[in-house]
Amino acid sequence: MFICDKDRVKDKIETFARFGATGQGGITRFSLSKEAIQARNEFAKRMKALNLKVRTDDLANMYATVPGTDPALPRIVMASHLDSVRNGGNYDGVLGVIAAMEVAETIVRDKIPHRHPFTAMVWTNEEGSLYLPAMMSSGILCGKFEKEAMLLSKSPEGKTFGDALKASGFAGDPANRLNPRDYALMLELHIEQGPILEAKKRQIGVVEGVLGMVNYRISTRGQADHAGTTPMSYRKDALLAAAEAIKYLHTELDKLDKNLVYTTGELVVHPCVHTVIPDYVEFSLDARHRDPEVIKQVVKVIKGLPKKLAKCAVSYREAWTRKTVLFNRDLVTMVEKNVRALGYSSMKIYSGAGHDAQYVAEMLPTTMIFVPSKDGHSHCEEEFTPVEDAWRGINVALNTVLEADAVYPDFAGFRKLPAD
Amino acid sequence: MFICDKDRVKDKIETFARFGATGQGGITRFSLSKEAIQARNEFAKRMKALNLKVRTDDLANMYATVPGTDPALPRIVMASHLDSVRNGGNYDGVLGVIAAMEVAETIVRDKIPHRHPFTAMVWTNEEGSLYLPAMMSSGILCGKFEKEAMLLSKSPEGKTFGDALKASGFAGDPANRLNPRDYALMLELHIEQGPILEAKKRQIGVVEGVLGMVNYRISTRGQADHAGTTPMSYRKDALLAAAEAIKYLHTELDKLDKNLVYTTGELVVHPCVHTVIPDYVEFSLDARHRDPEVIKQVVKVIKGLPKKLAKCAVSYREAWTRKTVLFNRDLVTMVEKNVRALGYSSMKIYSGAGHDAQYVAEMLPTTMIFVPSKDGHSHCEEEFTPVEDAWRGINVALNTVLEADAVYPDFAGFRKLPAD
Repeated sequence: MFICDKDRVKDKIETFARFGATGQGGITRFSLSKEAIQARNEFAKRMKALNLKVRTDDLANMYATVPGTDPALPRIVMASHLDSVRNGGNYDGVLGVIAAMEVAETIVRDKIPHRHPFTAMVWTNEEGSLYLPAMMSSGILCGKFEKEAMLLSKSPEGKTFGDALKASGFAGDPANRLNPRDYALMLELHIEQGPILEAKKRQIGVVEGVLGMVNYRISTRGQADHAGTTPMSYRKDALLAAAEAIKYLHTELDKLDKNLVYTTGELVVHPCVHTVIPDYVEFSLDARHRDPEVIKQVVKVIKGLPKKLAKCAVSYREAWTRKTVLFNRDLVTMVEKNVRALGYSSMKIYSGAGHDAQYVAEMLPTTMIFVPSKDGHSHCEEEFTPVEDAWRGINVALNTVLEADAVYPDFAGFRKLPAD
Repeated sequence: MFICDKDRVKDKIETFARFGATGQGGITRFSLSKEAIQARNEFAKRMKALNLKVRTDDLANMYATVPGTDPALPRIVMASHLDSVRNGGNYDGVLGVIAAMEVAETIVRDKIPHRHPFTAMVWTNEEGSLYLPAMMSSGILCGKFEKEAMLLSKSPEGKTFGDALKASGFAGDPANRLNPRDYALMLELHIEQGPILEAKKRQIGVVEGVLGMVNYRISTRGQADHAGTTPMSYRKDALLAAAEAIKYLHTELDKLDKNLVYTTGELVVHPCVHTVIPDYVEFSLDARHRDPEVIKQVVKVIKGLPKKLAKCAVSYREAWTRKTVLFNRDLVTMVEKNVRALGYSSMKIYSGAGHDAQYVAEMLPTTMIFVPSKDGHSHCEEEFTPVEDAWRGINVALNTVLEADAVYPDFAGFRKLPAD
């Protein structure tokens, strides 16, 4: 088995943690910001130090490639992102880029023979923190979003993604885009962002896919009246109705499959003045499960909400859905085999969060490798994964890349594209 | 009995409805804004047309006085405000000013003999829409607020009340302030802002006082985690906890006195992102009742909230309280007597909303007269009171002013000051 360098991994984690550091343990590093450009420059500098060529495509996605012995073969790519949410941590995204860099560095420094070129890649704007939607550039490359519309996506301050792209100096040639002719397969290493691996004491999550989800907007409509002058029996309190709706949903959804996760993360009250009875409340319901039948049951529960609660009209609409994405089965098996060979503990797991890999899975054979998140926290400054855990994950990635390099294209999974 | 002119009342309502008209039936007329100054100019113009002197004090409160036959006697004043909330209606406040103007106009035009001077007054910044707190200038005059602190109160755009006051051109002499030496008593006519008079089919509300209240801030603290990656059993969802707290409060508070009103009007979720389990929710609880014992029971219910709900810590703090204000009993009786003499239906009522009169009640014998609000709506563009109803209320005010003029000072109520 091949093994990468733990000290180098530690150094990379510590170095990237400086770009956008908040001083409280985390980072704020919005895509294409000054801090993100510092991180991009560090990526380029380190890859060039290995004599790799660094290219960018028209969306500023970055590609650093280690040549293989057979120039006719397509590239094997590992990719993730360097941008973060506001007050995010030092692992989400960046650890996947560090893994790709460390796999490249190990292959180059240890002169590991390999036929395919290997590419370490950085996705632009995975988080969508300034420019919605999340997973923007993988979405464009994989045909989910129109580039022209995305260029107009505006930050809260009114700057467009297109302007930020131009100003960054990182926009390159569209011909450099990840594509199914020049690339054989993609791997993404990521922190779990949940507590399961830690709780079950497993070192590696062998990711089988990304959970399907529905997102509904549920609203209650009452009547705004004065808090001091309106007797209780005359009221139509939209917030009381919303509280009842949330309790109803929890009671009913808790009866469904135990692996279902659902969340009301957003709730907005109108007019939100302490002396006025609320006339309108809208809240989100996000529900995720790998089995579409369970998602159907969730929708049935939502549609079964009483039409009136606390004398207020209750309504709902679907905001969006995502079908469960299954990663390439042969690649998943190959990851699992390498985990075993390395002597690590592991479990199969689904990603509840979205990742660029879920879009790429429709273009190339793709899979992901998870490493544990301390206390399950992510998208916060407390986000933490011990170097030892990160290093194990990168060893799994390194050996999987090299096994794929050895067997491709004589491997069923690599020829099956979902589009076929 | 004396009767004012219904057509003049209609004309005044229609005229003032133009200043700050939104085009959708209501007005936005923030204190000291261009629109409020138009309304102030109209007040001054109409009062000067009756040969009245118009004075202002240092807070831009306006005073138009009809001289009485005995210049040694203190003034009888009717007052309310011309400012509104955002997208407010054509009655809250302004109808009380119109009532004062119409009482003055009837006394002047009908040459009604009276001994005391009669003052029609406009309060500055009752709503506090731009410059908090509400009832700012009556609060200053009655010793509730420090003028210097109030001058620094800032609008959301960062303008201070002090600057707005200077720019308005309406700031005058502090010697003109309403005070207990130069003024005998105050009456304020106002819309009910609630549905009770309409529901009980009464034409006049004889206001006995302003309800005491408590305002609490209640919060729940959980843990922010990813909506897709955190199993339900690991969650500490602050919004679920808040929904449970709201239901708990409703269940327990509904067991208390049926005249209690309580409201959660404001609720804020953090971070309010649909993919993140909320870690913090804070909401208001406003409760009002005339009996301090019932308010104590409310506080007991709040303090009885479970310390943990949905695994989240629940806490609370008192934001403010207001004791029940009782209006001058003899003045209330005098209003009631004049309602009867005019042949109108009426009922005794408490104000659930705050009014300048509640502060003045600590300085002068004071009371209020309510007229019905259609469907109980106020602080919205639907606010409506038929001219007929307004006219009846102004007739009650006119006759009460004239009876007080006749009996003062041989009337117990007028000599009792709460400060004694």
